[in-house]
Amino acid sequence: MSRHISEQYDSELESLNRLLMEMGGLVERQLRSAARAFVTHDTGLAAEVFTLETDVNRLELALDDECVHIIARRQPAARDLRLLISIMKAGTDLERVGDEACKIARMTEQVATFPIPDNGYLGIQHMRDIVIRMLTTTLDAFARLDLDAAYEVIATDAEVDDGFAAVDRALLREIAEQSDFLQRSVNTVWTARALERIGDHAKNISEYIVYVIRGRDVRHPGAARS
Amino acid sequence: MSRHISEQYDSELESLNRLLMEMGGLVERQLRSAARAFVTHDTGLAAEVFTLETDVNRLELALDDECVHIIARRQPAARDLRLLISIMKAGTDLERVGDEACKIARMTEQVATFPIPDNGYLGIQHMRDIVIRMLTTTLDAFARLDLDAAYEVIATDAEVDDGFAAVDRALLREIAEQSDFLQRSVNTVWTARALERIGDHAKNISEYIVYVIRGRDVRHPGAARS
Repeated sequence: MSRHISEQYDSELESLNRLLMEMGGLVERQLRSAARAFVTHDTGLAAEVFTLETDVNRLELALDDECVHIIARRQPAARDLRLLISIMKAGTDLERVGDEACKIARMTEQVATFPIPDNGYLGIQHMRDIVIRMLTTTLDAFARLDLDAAYEVIATDAEVDDGFAAVDRALLREIAEQSDFLQRSVNTVWTARALERIGDHAKNISEYIVYVIRGRDVRHPGAARS
Repeated sequence: MSRHISEQYDSELESLNRLLMEMGGLVERQLRSAARAFVTHDTGLAAEVFTLETDVNRLELALDDECVHIIARRQPAARDLRLLISIMKAGTDLERVGDEACKIARMTEQVATFPIPDNGYLGIQHMRDIVIRMLTTTLDAFARLDLDAAYEVIATDAEVDDGFAAVDRALLREIAEQSDFLQRSVNTVWTARALERIGDHAKNISEYIVYVIRGRDVRHPGAARS
């Protein structure tokens, strides 16, 4: 009997893992399409990124629901509990990666009226290659609970930060040739963006409150609930 | 006996709530100082934002640890389980708010060599007022599980988005007066930033993997563990 329960539990975890991988696959597609659309100024491809968003949101909700049900029903301890909580948190991060891909798709629409720069957005291509590799590696590492691969991804994040710093420096050089005050303006927008994201976080927290009280998720009102 | 356990459980939840509020208070201080530092070009005040980061990180880890222990020990069902999971997720969001405040503090150091613009960063001040109100309201709503207040915060997020759009439009106007291609450059940096954050998310997911396997948290290596 105990073995039967354990087998059932294993199959529940396996199904959760499949959900997470399905979600990861969709988000990876969003990211690849968005990055490719940006560097080639392909607005048609950018539009495809938005169409995937509904499915990603639906999967995140399904993942959260399943995790909560399993915790309540199985009352797992220690490692199993940490796994379930981590799957939920990973789902949240994947969904936010999808959000960023949508932002890149919107940027594409804005830059598409300009010529592609001579270097073909080399800095963006470099960053894209690194983060796609990070994403696929971490998803694979999650499925196999591969600690070495996880540490590898964590270490790689510094390369992405360097890549961003290089793109940022190039912009400031370009701006410096034209105006003394554009640096101030750019930093103003960056700050506005940071504030805008803080608003998102506050909104998230409020949505958790609704979730606690109502037992349902208001994060993606458009997503179909099972 | 059962009542005794329930009282003990209540006091555990209360102590969790206090931890979350303490963390929220620190993050709010970071946000207020960072926003004030930016609009007044006060680099001394900006430096204070960084000094609070260690405490915020420590509190996030403590919050996560406590939640996992309570779930494992008490095996709560339904609403209590949702509450504990939501406290953990809220802790994650608060910590990221603190990260954004640090970014604003770094922006301050970069703009401080320029004169303060004639409008005194009116758009930033407007956004700051809204997000501080969102943050204090949502924390208060969390403590009281106040559904109406939570929905109010969720609705207010649209105002922050509008505030950002206004700042963004003002920058593009300023740039348009100087160059045909700076729009492209600015969008390139935005895209780079989005990719950089995607790297952060992938890193987060890998850290969850380490957490599952090792049972400890690698997110803030500098933070003291209890």
